[in-house]
Amino acid sequence: MTKYYRARDRQIEIGKLSTGPKNRITDIDGVTVGHVTIQEDSINTGVTAIVPHQGNLFKEKVVAASHVLNGFGKTIGTVQINELGTLETPILLTNTLSVGNCSTGLIKYMLQDNPEIGRTTGTINPVVAECNDMYLNDIRQMVINDNHVFEAIKNAKVDFDEGAVGAGTGMRCFGLKGGIGSASRVIEIEGDTYTFGVLVLSNFGHLDDFILDGKKVGKPLTKMQQKQTSEKDKGSIIIIVGTDMPMTGRQLQRVIKRCGVGLSRTGSKMGHGSGDLVIGFSTAQTIAHQPQKKKQSLEFYYEEELDKAFHAVSESTEEAILNSMLTAHTTSGREGRTLFSLSEYIDFLI
Amino acid sequence: MTKYYRARDRQIEIGKLSTGPKNRITDIDGVTVGHVTIQEDSINTGVTAIVPHQGNLFKEKVVAASHVLNGFGKTIGTVQINELGTLETPILLTNTLSVGNCSTGLIKYMLQDNPEIGRTTGTINPVVAECNDMYLNDIRQMVINDNHVFEAIKNAKVDFDEGAVGAGTGMRCFGLKGGIGSASRVIEIEGDTYTFGVLVLSNFGHLDDFILDGKKVGKPLTKMQQKQTSEKDKGSIIIIVGTDMPMTGRQLQRVIKRCGVGLSRTGSKMGHGSGDLVIGFSTAQTIAHQPQKKKQSLEFYYEEELDKAFHAVSESTEEAILNSMLTAHTTSGREGRTLFSLSEYIDFLI
Amino acid sequence: MTKYYRARDRQIEIGKLSTGPKNRITDIDGVTVGHVTIQEDSINTGVTAIVPHQGNLFKEKVVAASHVLNGFGKTIGTVQINELGTLETPILLTNTLSVGNCSTGLIKYMLQDNPEIGRTTGTINPVVAECNDMYLNDIRQMVINDNHVFEAIKNAKVDFDEGAVGAGTGMRCFGLKGGIGSASRVIEIEGDTYTFGVLVLSNFGHLDDFILDGKKVGKPLTKMQQKQTSEKDKGSIIIIVGTDMPMTGRQLQRVIKRCGVGLSRTGSKMGHGSGDLVIGFSTAQTIAHQPQKKKQSLEFYYEEELDKAFHAVSESTEEAILNSMLTAHTTSGREGRTLFSLSEYIDFLI
Amino acid sequence: MTKYYRARDRQIEIGKLSTGPKNRITDIDGVTVGHVTIQEDSINTGVTAIVPHQGNLFKEKVVAASHVLNGFGKTIGTVQINELGTLETPILLTNTLSVGNCSTGLIKYMLQDNPEIGRTTGTINPVVAECNDMYLNDIRQMVINDNHVFEAIKNAKVDFDEGAVGAGTGMRCFGLKGGIGSASRVIEIEGDTYTFGVLVLSNFGHLDDFILDGKKVGKPLTKMQQKQTSEKDKGSIIIIVGTDMPMTGRQLQRVIKRCGVGLSRTGSKMGHGSGDLVIGFSTAQTIAHQPQKKKQSLEFYYEEELDKAFHAVSESTEEAILNSMLTAHTTSGREGRTLFSLSEYIDFLI
Repeated sequence: MTKYYRARDRQIEIGKLSTGPKNRITDIDGVTVGHVTIQEDSINTGVTAIVPHQGNLFKEKVVAASHVLNGFGKTIGTVQINELGTLETPILLTNTLSVGNCSTGLIKYMLQDNPEIGRTTGTINPVVAECNDMYLNDIRQMVINDNHVFEAIKNAKVDFDEGAVGAGTGMRCFGLKGGIGSASRVIEIEGDTYTFGVLVLSNFGHLDDFILDGKKVGKPLTKMQQKQTSEKDKGSIIIIVGTDMPMTGRQLQRVIKRCGVGLSRTGSKMGHGSGDLVIGFSTAQTIAHQPQKKKQSLEFYYEEELDKAFHAVSESTEEAILNSMLTAHTTSGREGRTLFSLSEYIDFLI
Repeated sequence: MTKYYRARDRQIEIGKLSTGPKNRITDIDGVTVGHVTIQEDSINTGVTAIVPHQGNLFKEKVVAASHVLNGFGKTIGTVQINELGTLETPILLTNTLSVGNCSTGLIKYMLQDNPEIGRTTGTINPVVAECNDMYLNDIRQMVINDNHVFEAIKNAKVDFDEGAVGAGTGMRCFGLKGGIGSASRVIEIEGDTYTFGVLVLSNFGHLDDFILDGKKVGKPLTKMQQKQTSEKDKGSIIIIVGTDMPMTGRQLQRVIKRCGVGLSRTGSKMGHGSGDLVIGFSTAQTIAHQPQKKKQSLEFYYEEELDKAFHAVSESTEEAILNSMLTAHTTSGREGRTLFSLSEYIDFLI
Repeated sequence: MTKYYRARDRQIEIGKLSTGPKNRITDIDGVTVGHVTIQEDSINTGVTAIVPHQGNLFKEKVVAASHVLNGFGKTIGTVQINELGTLETPILLTNTLSVGNCSTGLIKYMLQDNPEIGRTTGTINPVVAECNDMYLNDIRQMVINDNHVFEAIKNAKVDFDEGAVGAGTGMRCFGLKGGIGSASRVIEIEGDTYTFGVLVLSNFGHLDDFILDGKKVGKPLTKMQQKQTSEKDKGSIIIIVGTDMPMTGRQLQRVIKRCGVGLSRTGSKMGHGSGDLVIGFSTAQTIAHQPQKKKQSLEFYYEEELDKAFHAVSESTEEAILNSMLTAHTTSGREGRTLFSLSEYIDFLI
Repeated sequence: MTKYYRARDRQIEIGKLSTGPKNRITDIDGVTVGHVTIQEDSINTGVTAIVPHQGNLFKEKVVAASHVLNGFGKTIGTVQINELGTLETPILLTNTLSVGNCSTGLIKYMLQDNPEIGRTTGTINPVVAECNDMYLNDIRQMVINDNHVFEAIKNAKVDFDEGAVGAGTGMRCFGLKGGIGSASRVIEIEGDTYTFGVLVLSNFGHLDDFILDGKKVGKPLTKMQQKQTSEKDKGSIIIIVGTDMPMTGRQLQRVIKRCGVGLSRTGSKMGHGSGDLVIGFSTAQTIAHQPQKKKQSLEFYYEEELDKAFHAVSESTEEAILNSMLTAHTTSGREGRTLFSLSEYIDFLI
């Protein structure tokens, strides 16, 4: 029987840095992740919520940045992140046609706890990113509603599941089953340690191009595959980066750009049809919605120290993608299609 | 009794270029604009749809570009416009908290006519921009639903209304009533004429800063105002530019940047809290979703000729803003607040 | 006889904020400006140096940002400013074909004081911006050399000249004589005051479009002009912003974007052929090349307070442009051409 | 004795696409490359010129784009490329402190053939990129002058050398000898074939991180290295992409972004101190400086076909970097330092 181990449980270790205790984005203190998984008949979809801290995010924002690797995507919320360098809601992941409903649900969630929004203060910037799960999911039915958003956020916890769950339920990666994966790395600067965690929603790539920790396994896997999918890649990857290292928004943007390094090493060429986007946040310090004093202070590190962070997110991204594939169960969906798990082939590859 | 004339009807003529016959964005052949206006009790809001051509926009896309003047906004759809340089849906305008619902409604509208979306071809990129109408509107009620989107698109026509209608119903501009305004200009190159049309959703600025065709009328208007609004500016402006001039996406982006020139001349400083964003499209040539031949050809003009286009959008933007204010009726809303029309004061100013 | 007063000396006061004591960029403590003016035969050109502080700029960098309004220009140094958010040399202004020589001269200047560059530490990022003074200057002769750079920096002082001096010697603005101009504004936040200073090298625009403090004086000036220049606008404007307000690089970039507001109000449409570029720096805090501790701290202000800064740079830019024109003497140059000073006409206009 | 074969001569074949006949950027019809190599005492540096076509580049520009992977660099010319989407000079590569002199030399070269520049038409945008060769070169001496620029352009030919030549003379890559390398790929669309060529100036990376066609050879190489270099990475990579495929500037920019994919696969993380920059051009069609008719037409391909181009530049970049290292001879320089060639170790690695 197929066992869905993570990469490290199979001695696949990407890079040189140490992982955090859980090797997940939730190694960053305060971060939680929740899923809602919807599977019935031709529906294979869901919502995943990444919660940067457990306080009131609108009142205590986190430093944030976004980076577009390939902009064939429908994300909402990055215009304001780019301008203000802050994040004020949980980040939601879902299918492409449900960004609107998730956005509405997320606004309602935020309105609940913040009665002053739209009354005495301005509005709220919901952040929702997406991949297209139409291969296994009847995406046209647009089944996601407000309740799913509330539930995903409520479900958020430190020990969250990976694989074909939440927004990852119907996703496809390198022609195999994709989904949610995570990894983390720890760096040390002058005696202080900081954690970088990555969570991916993987839904990209051609099997032929897949690289497993340096090995070009695309060709042998293509032969092993019982049923080849010939459709064009309409996929994407959303990459969420969290850290507790203090940094400016500009520095954070430099850091999250390096997710492209890890992504490239798995065999992605950031295909035309792939909406590849990164959103990052640092919990080191919160930015008050209405501070008591106008003058504030932000800690950051000497620029050269970012090299360590670059390694951390590059390694984490590559490993998180592998984790998303290894933990995702073989899944069947719309029109009798099946996507097989990488775990079904892994013993023949390593 | 107050008469709601447009700027030219009051001999306010911005710039030197000739206007199109209607002096509206609909002077561009094929462009239509539709509104849904929702007003009851503390609700003052709506939806405005700008339809770039009357065919199937998903199958026949238009060249498009977007430009962020100040990114304190929640627009959806510009990531993909920036990457691919095309627009494949009508553009919707609405209030800030209704972007999600409008996005969902717009997707449903597009799915109707395109049964292959999510089946044999990829997804759709809905474009929805917003301003915050919370001063007059109980925005937390989020009253906009799918039907309003369908209705706004259905209502689209060449002779559309300006002022406190559609998305403009509850908007505030320079402390007076804002809303929808439009203007157009015609340029000529080697015997061919092209039209540039601008439509604005105006919701920005402090009365004190208002400049009317070069005149600093902020101070006298402040004195005339019966009830001064002391709240901070939480406003925005969305500017839509259409043209039938052939150009590349890069050229179009250069052109729409010049909306900032016209905006600046009305007294805006693109305030921190103002989400100022431009979306432009050219109908000169459509880009097929699935072309018969992969090799295609795009007409464009020698770069120096763009200077004419720069004048056209700069002038149109300034005049469209004035039109939005002059045609917007004095409106009362949430908590007994009233925003007065510029038309009530205009006779004392010119 | 024509008197070359600045705008305020003629009761032209742009905006509402107070100016600094000198109404110049050198109102920011530590900032100095130096010129080298080269005029003989058909040569009318020079170099202007803006020195952000009087210490070793390589060892103690300042927070910096750049913004391209229209990128038809040949500036060097902004790629690194954008990435790292710091400035490590004086900023030089010169003519278009002399950016290379100024860059070489500036590197030599920096090497002198920093023997470790290229030995034990990396290199240096020279920042040189330009406008095209070919109307009055035989630009093909490329007369600027290393010595001019050293001299301009050596000449830097607090009470610097404006007008047809330094890099401004041969410049043309709105068909009249342009050049160097400056202005400043003071803002107050919670009892602390901060200064924003702007210095422009003005070389843009058509006379027909010129707006003087809201008045469209292009048409009357065109009639008054003794000899109309019919050539196409090949001009540009470089805008340097300095401040002592503490802010992050992202905030500074938001601030310097608002130079476009002031520029627009003088009649510019940021023409195709005009390389319009802004470089800004904050001296509030220096960033060490090799800090003693890797962890550092940066002061900044609550984002809403930037609105005051937006006003300050918008007003300063508009007034600096007027100052550049009013203080620039009528100048003759290449091929017997003459550019007249705005001061020769100003009495008929206000 | 060490033999300096290229990668393919050692059966290292990156990717799946066919190479052009020379597997060099000069497989694109009209493209030539020339070097000037300067080696004496502590000087190890030079100039490399990439000439996009053999006509007058100022009068017949090529479509161009640039992309910053990491902006710690001093390139000149990309501001205008970004705005106008064209290239009007050869591209020069040199050491960091010689960008100014190369820029001046390149302007002089262009003025020779274009007497109207600075007289009846505007100026010229020189494009010069750089890496820091201070490890082997006494960069402070700034030995490059005008004549070297003229000579490099004059030397340009189809069968150019790779390795420690021209701008590559003193460069270091992954702690080994770096320099100039090239590769090309051919794609086919509806019966037409197009070539993508890449030329790199490689000067980046830590030996420890080096990946050779998927194999992590950093650790074994570190052991083999006779003298370990412990200095911090101050390197960079400049990547030049040429093609004869017709495309818009926006499409070209999408294509050249994928150089980052190939770069990542060699072990780069785009380190903080590394100025990683790509400049691309398409020779498919020239853009006249002064066209006879203002209305023009540009051929381009259906967006999905770009996927082939993405593969082509990703593969070419990875192979060009390997070629730069394999063909670069072991070189000694400043302070008795030596950088060894990858070719000295390659037999032990594959």
